[in-house]
Amino acid sequence: MHYSISDETICAIITPQGSGAVATIRLSGKNALSIGDKIFARKKISEQQTHTVHFGELKDNNRLIDEVLVSIFKSPKSYTGEDVIEISCHGSLYIQQQILELLIKNGARLAKNGEFTLRAFSNGKLDLSQAEAVSDLIASESETGHKVALHQMRGGFSSDIKKLRDQLIEFTSLIELELDFSEEDVEFADRTKLLKLIKTIQTKISSLIHSFQLGNVIKKGIPVVIAGKPNVGKSTLLNALLNEDKAIVSHIPGTTRDVIEDEIAIGGYSFRFIDTAGLRETEDYVEAIGVKKTLEKVKSSSVIIYMFDVHETSLRDLKKNIEEFNEKLEGISSKLIIVGNKIDAENQALIKKEFSKLKDVILISAKEGLYLDKLVQKLLTEIEKDKLNLNETIITNSRHLEALNQTNECIDKIIEGLNTNLSGDLLTVDIKNALHHLGTISGEVTNEDILGSIFSRFCIGK
Amino acid sequence: MHYSISDETICAIITPQGSGAVATIRLSGKNALSIGDKIFARKKISEQQTHTVHFGELKDNNRLIDEVLVSIFKSPKSYTGEDVIEISCHGSLYIQQQILELLIKNGARLAKNGEFTLRAFSNGKLDLSQAEAVSDLIASESETGHKVALHQMRGGFSSDIKKLRDQLIEFTSLIELELDFSEEDVEFADRTKLLKLIKTIQTKISSLIHSFQLGNVIKKGIPVVIAGKPNVGKSTLLNALLNEDKAIVSHIPGTTRDVIEDEIAIGGYSFRFIDTAGLRETEDYVEAIGVKKTLEKVKSSSVIIYMFDVHETSLRDLKKNIEEFNEKLEGISSKLIIVGNKIDAENQALIKKEFSKLKDVILISAKEGLYLDKLVQKLLTEIEKDKLNLNETIITNSRHLEALNQTNECIDKIIEGLNTNLSGDLLTVDIKNALHHLGTISGEVTNEDILGSIFSRFCIGK
Repeated sequence: MHYSISDETICAIITPQGSGAVATIRLSGKNALSIGDKIFARKKISEQQTHTVHFGELKDNNRLIDEVLVSIFKSPKSYTGEDVIEISCHGSLYIQQQILELLIKNGARLAKNGEFTLRAFSNGKLDLSQAEAVSDLIASESETGHKVALHQMRGGFSSDIKKLRDQLIEFTSLIELELDFSEEDVEFADRTKLLKLIKTIQTKISSLIHSFQLGNVIKKGIPVVIAGKPNVGKSTLLNALLNEDKAIVSHIPGTTRDVIEDEIAIGGYSFRFIDTAGLRETEDYVEAIGVKKTLEKVKSSSVIIYMFDVHETSLRDLKKNIEEFNEKLEGISSKLIIVGNKIDAENQALIKKEFSKLKDVILISAKEGLYLDKLVQKLLTEIEKDKLNLNETIITNSRHLEALNQTNECIDKIIEGLNTNLSGDLLTVDIKNALHHLGTISGEVTNEDILGSIFSRFCIGK
Repeated sequence: MHYSISDETICAIITPQGSGAVATIRLSGKNALSIGDKIFARKKISEQQTHTVHFGELKDNNRLIDEVLVSIFKSPKSYTGEDVIEISCHGSLYIQQQILELLIKNGARLAKNGEFTLRAFSNGKLDLSQAEAVSDLIASESETGHKVALHQMRGGFSSDIKKLRDQLIEFTSLIELELDFSEEDVEFADRTKLLKLIKTIQTKISSLIHSFQLGNVIKKGIPVVIAGKPNVGKSTLLNALLNEDKAIVSHIPGTTRDVIEDEIAIGGYSFRFIDTAGLRETEDYVEAIGVKKTLEKVKSSSVIIYMFDVHETSLRDLKKNIEEFNEKLEGISSKLIIVGNKIDAENQALIKKEFSKLKDVILISAKEGLYLDKLVQKLLTEIEKDKLNLNETIITNSRHLEALNQTNECIDKIIEGLNTNLSGDLLTVDIKNALHHLGTISGEVTNEDILGSIFSRFCIGK
């Protein structure tokens, strides 16, 4: 797809796909108002004030298509920065399609994926990282994911990048000062100051790079593996947690017959629960693959729930099993939560007594939904030990990570250059490269390929 | 569901379900503006002019939920007639849900199905038949269905009903005049005039009643049965026609393994194609059921496509088969289109020659998509023989049909009364009943049960 900026007038349905009470179609570009004039029967759209709404008939010559509301946003006070009209119609698929056809007939063309936001970017309404956040915001399904995307869309990240750029530019001017005064031998004193400044910049960049691990987890969901021997109730627990999920639930069928993933929002976090094949030595080839997958999943998870059946397991066995399980993990750093399943009203007291000897065992009945709240609370406690500070910038985008890593490499070279008394002329090359990489994040430096790869991933209508 | 009018402020997502670039949430009721004031950060919603749009932040106390556009519609200039605000947000499911929760937290409650339109009705923005048309309009998937619903929503039907009521009221006043002058024996002359007037009214009512058959077909799709012996390519034709359908396609799985229905919009009409089990005598019990279903479907269809295999059928066989088929139909009045399938490039000329002896046979290849346009054209011609005049009112709603039938019964009694010189006092009872039944259509006469049965069928958000 070609992602240069054209001056054509573009249109798309911007509300979710399907039929409903109301659907909205956006038209943006230099002819938006004049096309509006041609199809809206009651008054001249182009003569109305910006940010007003008008009720009337939409007509294809004399054929009535619908009674609609038209909202008018005149350039530059619109989402794209161009003249925009938004038509809210009765939400039948037939009407939505008829209106799109009417707009196309009158000179508009269908917008490509992300093309409205691309125009907002090219008209300076948003920088590139803000534009990317719009797409993340629409995809966010949990409180934390939403918060991080909203922070980025509102320019939190952009302002961090701008500060870094300003500091690098200040650094450049100090280097240039050094060059001017080089004959007077003030070199040494300046370089200490320079080194301090560049290290401050590097600390900030490192902290942004470091935030990606968390950001990625927030965006994709915190991976939680449910492990344990066969038939201890792993799938039942997954289903029980799904039912607890009052928010949005999506189902991702696993790639093997044994690994099933489910995303569940709990307490503002998006968790990616992974049900696994039983963890045991096996002769069966297919099952062996399942076990191998399990171990891989376990190693890449943030939290592991190790489940056992309270009726089939003595305290002594449990201790031994956990020990074996830990060995298999080969010292990976996931948090382990031990969960005893299948308690019921009759045996509760006895079982509680038995396993109370082992610290931190949570006893539940996945089938009956007993004490799931305790498990959920434990999960949240484990996660919050990481002390996410969501008011700081957290990067979630691998494009940004790459740009920051490249910037960091340039900074390393600058520091090395300062330490080896490299001349100012040569230092400025690395500074320019660092500025270049930072600039790709906000889009001050960009090209059609970058734009294409970013905006083609948007949905149509955005 | 209780469908009385309350003064609570109600809210719902009015755009289609799911995530998208933009979603819209409507808030209607006496507190709509004050709730807007509480949650919109930038300015006082209540102080803004009607029909204006405002960009700003939606906040739950200090927690930012989204950057939104708020459109303001002040009573009575809104869809419901009440104060309304419409919030357009980034269309993630999470944000949509958060905003609904925010509105509820601030005193609104979730709207019930059709509740916005119910309020529009109760505030006199629409009469009942117009309100019903809103729901039809959203459900319409073809040009004709859309046109009929739009005509009704804009009051075309209401104005017919109003004329009928006015004429009945004029009739009443003439009866009353008769009563006043009854001592002077002007009775006879008046009654001729009265009879003429009431018959004019009845003609109009009859024509509306008559239009229901067409209206029902337009709303539900024109039923077309594809019949023929097994393996002549009935399912292939259905699939080929589906691929031709550039508009909206829905799939309705049949109730038996053999009857499959598909709705396809062609040439502005919605056709309901019904693929059937092979038409033959059979010993197999399950297949026998299929054949029975087929015959039932055939009898209720508007058009029957009778298919045969051009390679397996001689002209003589075909004539015999059609004769037999017609016998099975027991003289039902559906239009019959004879279609020969499986022609190809090699045998085309020969086959054409063979079957050209039988008038009106259409030769196609369903598999290759050959000459399907001829079949479609034939279908449209058959339908348009009915000469639908879509500019006249066509009733599509069985509630309206029932009310018109009941009105008609009253009119019959009035005519009988006039013919038997019934006294004016007794005639007025029937006139009042007729007015009552007409009044239920527009909602001048109504009750909670009627409202409940109408609006509970709407979607939420309408």
